[in-house]
Amino acid sequence: MTSLPVGALTDDPDVLAAYASDRASFCPSGRPSALVRARSVQDVVDTLKWAYDNRVPVVPQGARTGLSGGANAVDGCVLLNLEKMDRIVEIDVPEQIAVVQPGVINADLAAAVAEKGLYYPPDPGSRDISSIGGNVATNAGGMCCLKYGVTGDFVRALQVVLADGQVTRTGRRTAKGVAGYDLTRLFVGSEGTLGVVTEVTVALRPAAARPLTAVAFFDSAADAGRAVADYLGAGYRPAVLELMDRTSIDAVGKLQDLGFPADVGAVLIAQSDVGAEATEELKAYERSARACGATEVIVADDPAEGDLLMRGRRLAGLAFEEYPACLVEDVCVPRGRLADLIEGVERIAAEHDVLIACVGHAGDGNVHPTVLFDLDQAEAAERAFDAVMRLGLDLGGTITGEHGVGLLKREWLAEELDDAALWTHQQIKMALDPRGILNPGRVIDSVPGGRADADRRSS
Amino acid sequence: MTSLPVGALTDDPDVLAAYASDRASFCPSGRPSALVRARSVQDVVDTLKWAYDNRVPVVPQGARTGLSGGANAVDGCVLLNLEKMDRIVEIDVPEQIAVVQPGVINADLAAAVAEKGLYYPPDPGSRDISSIGGNVATNAGGMCCLKYGVTGDFVRALQVVLADGQVTRTGRRTAKGVAGYDLTRLFVGSEGTLGVVTEVTVALRPAAARPLTAVAFFDSAADAGRAVADYLGAGYRPAVLELMDRTSIDAVGKLQDLGFPADVGAVLIAQSDVGAEATEELKAYERSARACGATEVIVADDPAEGDLLMRGRRLAGLAFEEYPACLVEDVCVPRGRLADLIEGVERIAAEHDVLIACVGHAGDGNVHPTVLFDLDQAEAAERAFDAVMRLGLDLGGTITGEHGVGLLKREWLAEELDDAALWTHQQIKMALDPRGILNPGRVIDSVPGGRADADRRSS
Repeated sequence: MTSLPVGALTDDPDVLAAYASDRASFCPSGRPSALVRARSVQDVVDTLKWAYDNRVPVVPQGARTGLSGGANAVDGCVLLNLEKMDRIVEIDVPEQIAVVQPGVINADLAAAVAEKGLYYPPDPGSRDISSIGGNVATNAGGMCCLKYGVTGDFVRALQVVLADGQVTRTGRRTAKGVAGYDLTRLFVGSEGTLGVVTEVTVALRPAAARPLTAVAFFDSAADAGRAVADYLGAGYRPAVLELMDRTSIDAVGKLQDLGFPADVGAVLIAQSDVGAEATEELKAYERSARACGATEVIVADDPAEGDLLMRGRRLAGLAFEEYPACLVEDVCVPRGRLADLIEGVERIAAEHDVLIACVGHAGDGNVHPTVLFDLDQAEAAERAFDAVMRLGLDLGGTITGEHGVGLLKREWLAEELDDAALWTHQQIKMALDPRGILNPGRVIDSVPGGRADADRRSS
Repeated sequence: MTSLPVGALTDDPDVLAAYASDRASFCPSGRPSALVRARSVQDVVDTLKWAYDNRVPVVPQGARTGLSGGANAVDGCVLLNLEKMDRIVEIDVPEQIAVVQPGVINADLAAAVAEKGLYYPPDPGSRDISSIGGNVATNAGGMCCLKYGVTGDFVRALQVVLADGQVTRTGRRTAKGVAGYDLTRLFVGSEGTLGVVTEVTVALRPAAARPLTAVAFFDSAADAGRAVADYLGAGYRPAVLELMDRTSIDAVGKLQDLGFPADVGAVLIAQSDVGAEATEELKAYERSARACGATEVIVADDPAEGDLLMRGRRLAGLAFEEYPACLVEDVCVPRGRLADLIEGVERIAAEHDVLIACVGHAGDGNVHPTVLFDLDQAEAAERAFDAVMRLGLDLGGTITGEHGVGLLKREWLAEELDDAALWTHQQIKMALDPRGILNPGRVIDSVPGGRADADRRSS
């Protein structure tokens, strides 16, 4: 009989409580029965074998910086934490790939490969504290995704421990390959519901040129949204195109002096990393911004100024946590609907009498309208939060651009997907996790149903 | 009771025979019982419902230009051909996406979006004759993939008809999105074994600058392979980096005068489309090529010369068909092992006393060693073909970089994947196609097995 890996095991109630949730607000978490801090693949295998035999739920965790409750405990579960598997196994400079354990912090990987002249682009807002395993579990995005792509675009191969303890490798080290189904992409973004990732092989790029930065100021965030559509529609693809509205600027301003004019309605920050042609790319940006009502456009001639500004932008998440309570949204819409989304969010804020900050990856159409509220406004805040998701769907968008479904948006998934897609999710979940032990209640349940399922079970 | 769509149905034996196979050589095909030339999603739904009810195998087909037998008939099957669903439904210029039916020819899509200033990069060698549906089914690559990515990197959303006739949509129109499992990527490359794609939403890019071309001549193809590793290892990512060895040059030379010096051992063609910086990118290429033994490097100052040269390179597949028989390999190795692969292929050719041409997407490490032989050499040719796959695996590569597993490489899949990965494939196949009617015998069989499967069936 398999047992839990004793050396890695904790059942200290205080420790369990500390590990029972991620950073999602207003997202319930259950009472775990144990915590395994895995130090090896064998620890993960032992945990899953034991849990499979005993039908005990397992909640895989990385750095618990997620924003959708995907790492929150389930009653009676084993928390399977991977943050101690944090070794960069290999950086292969000629092949431009790195092999890492899941607990490696995103920024640590980026820094390690940068030292070797390489670049790992995916840079979620949490990059200083989130782990590659968590990034893979949620298919995390970030600021550089507009030009370079999301986490999944950089994952070449995975080592995964399946529900019953089988260890498998997906993908390959080569640039291309089509031998079998794309299991790598199936596990990426599956939020720990199909397997536990124990090693990640990522593709790297040659280092990019240090970016030039331009900032455009607008009276309204919707104008900034129109500038996004205009600029990208003209055929440019800058490295960064980030939006902050008035409320976001105010929030960040409490942590860092951004040096913006006092009455600014919104800023849209563009960065170009195409070397000698960056100036031209930013000139085109200035034209689009002015055509859409920018009151001022400044191109930083010192790259350090740009770095400082981006540091400010990256503080938004932290700045929102200074409020009594916040709910972070993650809708993504077609870029042409960005202005509609922003105006709609302003309407929703007014209707529900809450403050909503609009900040995010405008170039992707992915913004994080963040409801900022006092605890006695919680109900109104949740209604506003739901209304933003509904608006995102109505504009042809998605309920989650990069944070994942987790627990927070599980019921909303059925609003976005059609019945056959939900059926497909359930079939896959049941096929790979027939006892439903892996992160149960997240993304999708293992609920039998449908015609082919009856068939499959009688076959 | 559902019936096959009568208006789209053929059982004329001559027509059936004509549609019974794709372009894979030496790959058996069975006798189909009917051909459905679907003109609508409803035709596909009706066909699958009927086949599901009657447990009749269905072989989905596009333009039948595949090279792995994935579209070859199975005895008694319905051939479900989608080439008449060939409408470009929409080109959304501001959002840079297109929506197409699966029968649209790759080059037609590329031309249609180019007219609007946009670019659809995936360009398999078969681009003039292969359909987007087939490209999606195999996750096709091409020459522009080194810089821009493969078909799957450009698929945003799919409409898919499942085995039992359910219609579903996967993915989204937005730039990003993580609502649920990445079903889009699961269907891409699944070779018609999990569902039938009836609509594809692709991402487009802004048009690239017209490329500049440089050609380097080498005494040996292995030297060219070393130049690939050296050049890309230095941090460059050209638009194209294509290899032709002596045998390929000779074969193409019979169709088009390439104007190369008479005693050239191999050429490596690089293209750069970075506008003003293309000259610098190609100068770096010249340095790498010369450092690796290039006897001459020519930079075409007229883009038309480059076009002509690339047209020559694209003729290779056709040129090989002029031989009595050919077997096209598709291995992909880490770039640093390219020279080893090429030298190994030369050894294999000598050992088996067959001619093997080495041509392909050297920048990806993906080459198509093509065994050229007389019909009485078929056994030796097949042994050589297998030996090349074994070599690819031994060098840390994959048995197929872009053509797919199909029928041709089915037994080899088990050499590349571990047992748990094969189990995962089977679980997914059984979950989505429990009666095993979709393209049976391709990629993976619906074979029950394993611990969790027993569980799932008793649950």
